Amino acid sequence: MTRTDHDVLGIGNAIVDVIAHADDAFLERRSLVKGTMRIVGAADADLLYGEMGPGVEMSGGSVANTVAGVASFGGRAAYIGRIRDDLLGRVFRHDITAAGVTYRVPAASEGPGTARCLILVTPDAQRTMNTYLGACVELGREDLDRALIESAAITYLEGYLFDPPKAKAALREAAEIAHAAGRKVSLSLSDPFCVERHRADFRALVEDQIDVLFANEIEICSLYETEDFETAARAVRGHCEIAVLTRSAKGSLVVTADGILEIAAAPVERVVDTTGAGDLYASGFLHGLTQGRPLETCGRLGSLAAAEIIGHVGARPEASLKELAQRAGLA
Amino acid sequence: MTRTDHDVLGIGNAIVDVIAHADDAFLERRSLVKGTMRIVGAADADLLYGEMGPGVEMSGGSVANTVAGVASFGGRAAYIGRIRDDLLGRVFRHDITAAGVTYRVPAASEGPGTARCLILVTPDAQRTMNTYLGACVELGREDLDRALIESAAITYLEGYLFDPPKAKAALREAAEIAHAAGRKVSLSLSDPFCVERHRADFRALVEDQIDVLFANEIEICSLYETEDFETAARAVRGHCEIAVLTRSAKGSLVVTADGILEIAAAPVERVVDTTGAGDLYASGFLHGLTQGRPLETCGRLGSLAAAEIIGHVGARPEASLKELAQRAGLA
Repeated sequence: MTRTDHDVLGIGNAIVDVIAHADDAFLERRSLVKGTMRIVGAADADLLYGEMGPGVEMSGGSVANTVAGVASFGGRAAYIGRIRDDLLGRVFRHDITAAGVTYRVPAASEGPGTARCLILVTPDAQRTMNTYLGACVELGREDLDRALIESAAITYLEGYLFDPPKAKAALREAAEIAHAAGRKVSLSLSDPFCVERHRADFRALVEDQIDVLFANEIEICSLYETEDFETAARAVRGHCEIAVLTRSAKGSLVVTADGILEIAAAPVERVVDTTGAGDLYASGFLHGLTQGRPLETCGRLGSLAAAEIIGHVGARPEASLKELAQRAGLA
Repeated sequence: MTRTDHDVLGIGNAIVDVIAHADDAFLERRSLVKGTMRIVGAADADLLYGEMGPGVEMSGGSVANTVAGVASFGGRAAYIGRIRDDLLGRVFRHDITAAGVTYRVPAASEGPGTARCLILVTPDAQRTMNTYLGACVELGREDLDRALIESAAITYLEGYLFDPPKAKAALREAAEIAHAAGRKVSLSLSDPFCVERHRADFRALVEDQIDVLFANEIEICSLYETEDFETAARAVRGHCEIAVLTRSAKGSLVVTADGILEIAAAPVERVVDTTGAGDLYASGFLHGLTQGRPLETCGRLGSLAAAEIIGHVGARPEASLKELAQRAGLA
């Protein structure tokens, strides 16, 4: 295996978040399912924006959050995702570049605008997401930077990419390129509704091409169409080298052929906004993995990053995760 | 005096903030003076943005923050300030409207884009601001909504409006309209450098047309060209009905013909970002004043709002100031 230039390359939907507070009644009136993500068209996005409270705009995108987290840990991170040459695209590029992530994708000069996600944070700190995919809908095989994929120890794929129509083929091809170069491929299942929409494709991808899988309890149960978490955990065990199953405050499980490792959640003073908890958990885990750390340390780095992100509004780390890891004796 | 439709009408620079963390070395390398505001051109703004860390975008503008605060207290607030019909303009309009503030100004369909302020927050929670005025530079007398000014108990003017060239005349005319309708006029001195740039004009405005003045220690000393705060406080006493002099953690002084009232700062668990502290102090004070509360209560409402804003990133309140005031026994 040749030398790597990057530890983690993420491929995902490049999104700018618009985060606002909302109460449960607001979600109910609009039949929004708390804690999930739904795809909305431009008109619905405009309508919802008009009804939402005052917002904060900040770069997001699940896997983009993860690679920003990897960079914050001191890892070498890169990203592929489509933006337009508009103001939000400029914000996205600035933020991910300023976070220390390699991002070479040229902005599209035509087509829909840069994607945005309207995120409603309820008083219980849960987030409910409404994504207008915009420029992301066109992501396809032509956007894959082969040299970049070959340069990364792990290519990390966003499950949400199953929603834009052309991206499924791109995910499969990215996995092939990575494996042909002797690299690892990882995937996040992203969202239970997303798994439902694309279950067969997800299952085929997981079973054929994924080395490291991230999923929460609901997503893994949905993937294997069972209500029993243990059954789902057993089902995934044979398919991936490592399956990391997150369970919010109950911590996470790392499932491998050798057995099941339980990782505790890290303590949080006050949970403000759970947006990005899974994304940042993945950043810690993947960073540990690329640094050759034991699986338990990988899980603890994941818990540490998740705890940082849920302590404030937004899904990109505010503190240096490298320093937090050092202080926790995990660096 | 006729019935009012609004308690506080603010006139100011309509700005979207881009807030990023920076260290002292970053400010030093660029010769930025911590805690102050400077005006930058489009090219300098782009250059600085390229060098800044990842940012958060949220609506700002000093007096716009104040009227958003008044609305959060439950007051009837309105705003005049110029935006372009671009994405930042849309964000500005959405946020101030969603905060409950009357905002009728149509977006300009040509000319420079909506103003933005690049704010660098250092680890000591101080903010250093770099403002690209954009669409604000054209604010003039033609933007004054006479009926709206006549409808408001207090018209609150932003000292920063002395920077866009045509706005000085508009400030004077707004004050005339308000006084002719039997209303009060208030002004914030905004920034010590801004006072230096326009001292003579500021002094004339304060002495001729301002009923309620807001300034911090440095600004009031700069206005009267003295290094002695007591001297400055005595100087302003004859000119305004009420002069409110803020002193950060040392609280504030309310100076009237009757004497000087000392108001303590409200306790804050952790100071995160001082952006908007003065703006929100003014919101509490003006809200109290329009509700006919004693001056001491006005000052305590100011301290309460300032304490809320410095506990988080950004200059618009996250909590309901009305509820905070009720809990503190001030409602």
